[in-house]
Parts: sequence; C-alpha cells; structure tokens
Amino acid sequence: MKDLDFIIELEKMKKIERRTKVIGEDRRENDAEHSWHIAVMAMLLKDYADEEIRKNLNVDKVVKMLLVHDIVEIYAGDTFAYDIVQNEDKKERELLAMKKIRERLSDENAVLVDELWTEFEKMETTDSMFANAMDRLQPMMSNLCAEDGGSWREFHVTRSQIMKRMAPISAVSERLSAYVLSNLEEHIRKGNVMDR
Amino acid sequence: MKDLDFIIELEKMKKIERRTKVIGEDRRENDAEHSWHIAVMAMLLKDYADEEIRKNLNVDKVVKMLLVHDIVEIYAGDTFAYDIVQNEDKKERELLAMKKIRERLSDENAVLVDELWTEFEKMETTDSMFANAMDRLQPMMSNLCAEDGGSWREFHVTRSQIMKRMAPISAVSERLSAYVLSNLEEHIRKGNVMDR
Repeated sequence: MKDLDFIIELEKMKKIERRTKVIGEDRRENDAEHSWHIAVMAMLLKDYADEEIRKNLNVDKVVKMLLVHDIVEIYAGDTFAYDIVQNEDKKERELLAMKKIRERLSDENAVLVDELWTEFEKMETTDSMFANAMDRLQPMMSNLCAEDGGSWREFHVTRSQIMKRMAPISAVSERLSAYVLSNLEEHIRKGNVMDR
Repeated sequence: MKDLDFIIELEKMKKIERRTKVIGEDRRENDAEHSWHIAVMAMLLKDYADEEIRKNLNVDKVVKMLLVHDIVEIYAGDTFAYDIVQNEDKKERELLAMKKIRERLSDENAVLVDELWTEFEKMETTDSMFANAMDRLQPMMSNLCAEDGGSWREFHVTRSQIMKRMAPISAVSERLSAYVLSNLEEHIRKGNVMDR
C-alpha cells in the first residue's frame, strides 16, 4: 500500500531542521513542528485578514496547503529564506522532489498533494497568499519574542530583507503587518536586526 | 491581541513528549510533530475508510480536529494511553486545561477549538471516529516499523491492550485494521508484544 509507506516516509519531516529555534530551547525547530504550528495559526488568524481577503478565503484549503507546503524538503532539504546561494537552484530541487513524491503516492493523493503545493508556491490565489503569510509570520513571531532577535541576529538579517519577506503578510492583513512592524522597531534599536 | 499571545503559547506543544520515538532517532516525538503527522494521514487515508464511513466523512473537519486534539496537554501534560493511574484523572485535568485555553482565546476561536476538541473526545460522530483512528494508527505504525516493537516493548504492552486501542480503527476501516493486525502477529512472535 503505497500511501502507507509514504506515511512512514513523512517521518523524515521530523528530522529536517529549520533555522528558527524553539522558543526557550537550544534546538532548532523541524519541518513537522513548523507545519503544525502554521496550520493552527491559519485556523486562529483567519479573522485577522483584511475584509476583501476574508471574503474569499477558504481556510480549510489553506490548512491543507500548509500541512504539505514543506514536504518536498524530505528530498530537497530546507532552504533558508535569506540564503542567496541556496535559493538559486531551490525551484529545480523542489520540482524533482515533488516528482518523487508523486511516484510514491496513489494517483489521487499525488494530484491532491501536488496541486496544493503548486498553488502555495505560485502565490497567485487568495488562499495561497494567506498561507504564505502564515508561513512567514511564524518565524517572525518567534524572533520577535526572542530577547536577542533569534535567527535574525544569528544570520545577520537586515531590515530590508525582512520587509521583502513580509510582502504576503502586508498583502493579506493590515493588523498582522502592523503587529510585526511595531515590534520590529525594538529589535532594530537593540541591534538585533541591521538597519539597512 | 489574545490570539497572537496564544499562538506563542502553542510553542509548548513542541516540548511535550509522547512515548513513541521518532523512527530512527533516539528521542521521543512531541505533540506538535504527532499532530502534524496525523492531520496529513487523514488527508491521505480518507479513501481507506469503509464506504459507509467515507460517504459521511468531512475530512476538512477531521484535519482541524486533529490539529487541536492534543492542545489541552499544554496545561494537562501527556497521558500515556496504557497508563492506568494517569488515566484516572485525565478527563478532569483536560477539562480544566480547556477552560484555561478558552480564556486565552478570542470568543470565536474559543468556541471553535472547544467544539473540535469536545467532538474528538466524545467519539460519537463519524468524523471523530475517523480522527481517533488516525490518532491511534500513527504510533502503531511507528511501532510496527520498529525492529524491537518500539514503545510496545518498552512499556510491556499486551495484545489485548492493543486490540482495545484499535477499536476506532476497526470501526472505520477494514483495510487499515487488517494492515495493523497482519503486521502485529510478527511482533507477537518476536516477543515485542506480550501475547495476553
């Protein structure tokens, strides 16, 4: 039974490290933890979306999108958002990984997972914009909570890099965007984020 | 913003250890990882449900149910399924935890989370039966994969205890139930599971 074998394969998501640390622990969070967190965030933050977005939002779809948005990393590895070199061949590596995933799933599930992932990646629909906003908000919230700015300081991230990463958040929610921006200033003042 | 504070609070799910170990690693999986895994399982295994179940199944709801089914453990801790003493006051501890969670969420989210959790716990609806089946299947699959029977051997679990835990799986899917049973025999033969 292909799908059952793939469910065991999914265990690898618990071993793929991201750059963000678990708040209060000296270990990095993994893809499974991250995916769970942002799927719950989508459930709890749907009403924080701007009215125009909220009207067209299918949260159930967003949740499923977020649950599988990182599974290509089982074969392609995690790519740090602010790593220029790694990001050069990211697309190619991930498309190959999705091909491999499709082969390991039953036909119907192959289509389901590929469609959700592709929609998330293209970022053209309201649902995928909101999903991407959750994906970007979670590590930001974690860094905002960290006294030392977490992975921002560790990897010398700049204000302009963060602003660029924020685009999907600003596109779907003024409230969430304002929340990040107001707290970001404090980290810039402290020198956790470079002001350029 | 209450909901945003609670999203940080959810980070604790990444620190609550279960008894099952991550396959191939010498560490136990945590609630966040487990919840992610079973939510994806629900997406991929919906067609493994018996026809009568499948007809009435709302997988989107099951997914959301599974994402929050363990969050009471933030305040109540994990209760091992086969621990008789711990299970005596489980209900009481978890109801108090849900009260606390409700207070920390906006009104609408408090209702959403409580309703999903309560439905899961009562195990009266098709959706909650299927959700509980996923919750029980995942650690079983992990133990079935482990050469030494994983947490079954470690905690001296018996065949009759496993059969009892399997009830929701058998209730929703002959295929998944047959998959567990056929593989379980091997572990009983090896002495990983006590045959009583």
